[in-house]
Amino acid sequence: MSASMVTPMSASRLEQRKAQTRRKLVDAARAMLADGTAQRASIQDITEAADVGFGSFYNHFTSKDDLFVAAVADVLEEVGALLERLNRELADPAAGFAQSVRLAVRMARKRPQVAHILVRHGLSYLDGRHGLTPRILPDIIRAVEAGRFTVDNPRLAFATTFGSVLGTLQLTLVDPDFAAQPVDEQLAEQLLRMFGVAADEARELATGPLPDLP
Amino acid sequence: MSASMVTPMSASRLEQRKAQTRRKLVDAARAMLADGTAQRASIQDITEAADVGFGSFYNHFTSKDDLFVAAVADVLEEVGALLERLNRELADPAAGFAQSVRLAVRMARKRPQVAHILVRHGLSYLDGRHGLTPRILPDIIRAVEAGRFTVDNPRLAFATTFGSVLGTLQLTLVDPDFAAQPVDEQLAEQLLRMFGVAADEARELATGPLPDLP
Repeated sequence: MSASMVTPMSASRLEQRKAQTRRKLVDAARAMLADGTAQRASIQDITEAADVGFGSFYNHFTSKDDLFVAAVADVLEEVGALLERLNRELADPAAGFAQSVRLAVRMARKRPQVAHILVRHGLSYLDGRHGLTPRILPDIIRAVEAGRFTVDNPRLAFATTFGSVLGTLQLTLVDPDFAAQPVDEQLAEQLLRMFGVAADEARELATGPLPDLP
Repeated sequence: MSASMVTPMSASRLEQRKAQTRRKLVDAARAMLADGTAQRASIQDITEAADVGFGSFYNHFTSKDDLFVAAVADVLEEVGALLERLNRELADPAAGFAQSVRLAVRMARKRPQVAHILVRHGLSYLDGRHGLTPRILPDIIRAVEAGRFTVDNPRLAFATTFGSVLGTLQLTLVDPDFAAQPVDEQLAEQLLRMFGVAADEARELATGPLPDLP
């Protein structure tokens, strides 16, 4: 291997290692956000949980708060990208909306760690440019433009949708009786009816087959 | 004053002073929850903000967490009691429901500190026996029993209502354009329609005069 080849290889490996360290820190922060220990954790607790050197923390984040903001954004982005990908096949925005709502509610069982973070921190990111807002709000606007939804205020409709999903996740997480009911279908049907879809069509859209959450 | 009278007087004064100290600690905690400094505050920061002795903290609370749980419960209880009192005049549970939703949304302007705490911490208390759950859930159940609402799952309807209110509060707090719209009326109307109230009646119930928030 010639000396001229070493530099780019090393730079690339360095980048890769930096990205891995950042990923480990964000994952550790996500676990702490989910189990409610984030508030009490010191930066040393975090770097130990992430299995990275204490000093490397400041190569990536300026403070504990900075890391936790990034960790919540990471969760929202992951969920948003997932819903968007699963939605891509559906031409009808009302069907896409119903599917996103149902899959988000199912997070409580399939991804409880993610669901805990959404319930604890999701509302503060309601107005964000990343995560769920740019995935679900456009569905609502497209559905209004296509004459599928009758909605005066799309952002209120989105706040209602997002808040309802979080409330439903919370009850699903804490109450097994509630979780035993088909709440994903019930919530999607309720919201579709609220947005002016006729009752029988709302039921049909809310009870169809659903792609598996990977 | 005879010696036999001193003891009851002192005991009563002591009780009063204890209650005042607890109130000051809870108020200081509420201010910190509202401005987002609660996480970083030490017990000394809190007793200084409350203007009480450091040692008196442990006469009332076992830990910082214990105090903040009590402070959020205090906010929920205050809002719940207020909505209940303003509701007492209304015989129609659908009208009571609409009024509670509208008044809760108006907290964002009239009581922004309370609104901030609800948005940041309210969801975790969704299943609670105190605060808003025992005030709003029974309105929904009464409305179903009276044939005013068509709702399969009253607890889901409550989770939807509560989550929607919090989402609407959040957007109202952060976005002046959103806040400039009559979102309290729009949200109440949406929810009433969702629960099966006919569109024209939903509008009427959601746009009537409202008692002032004291």
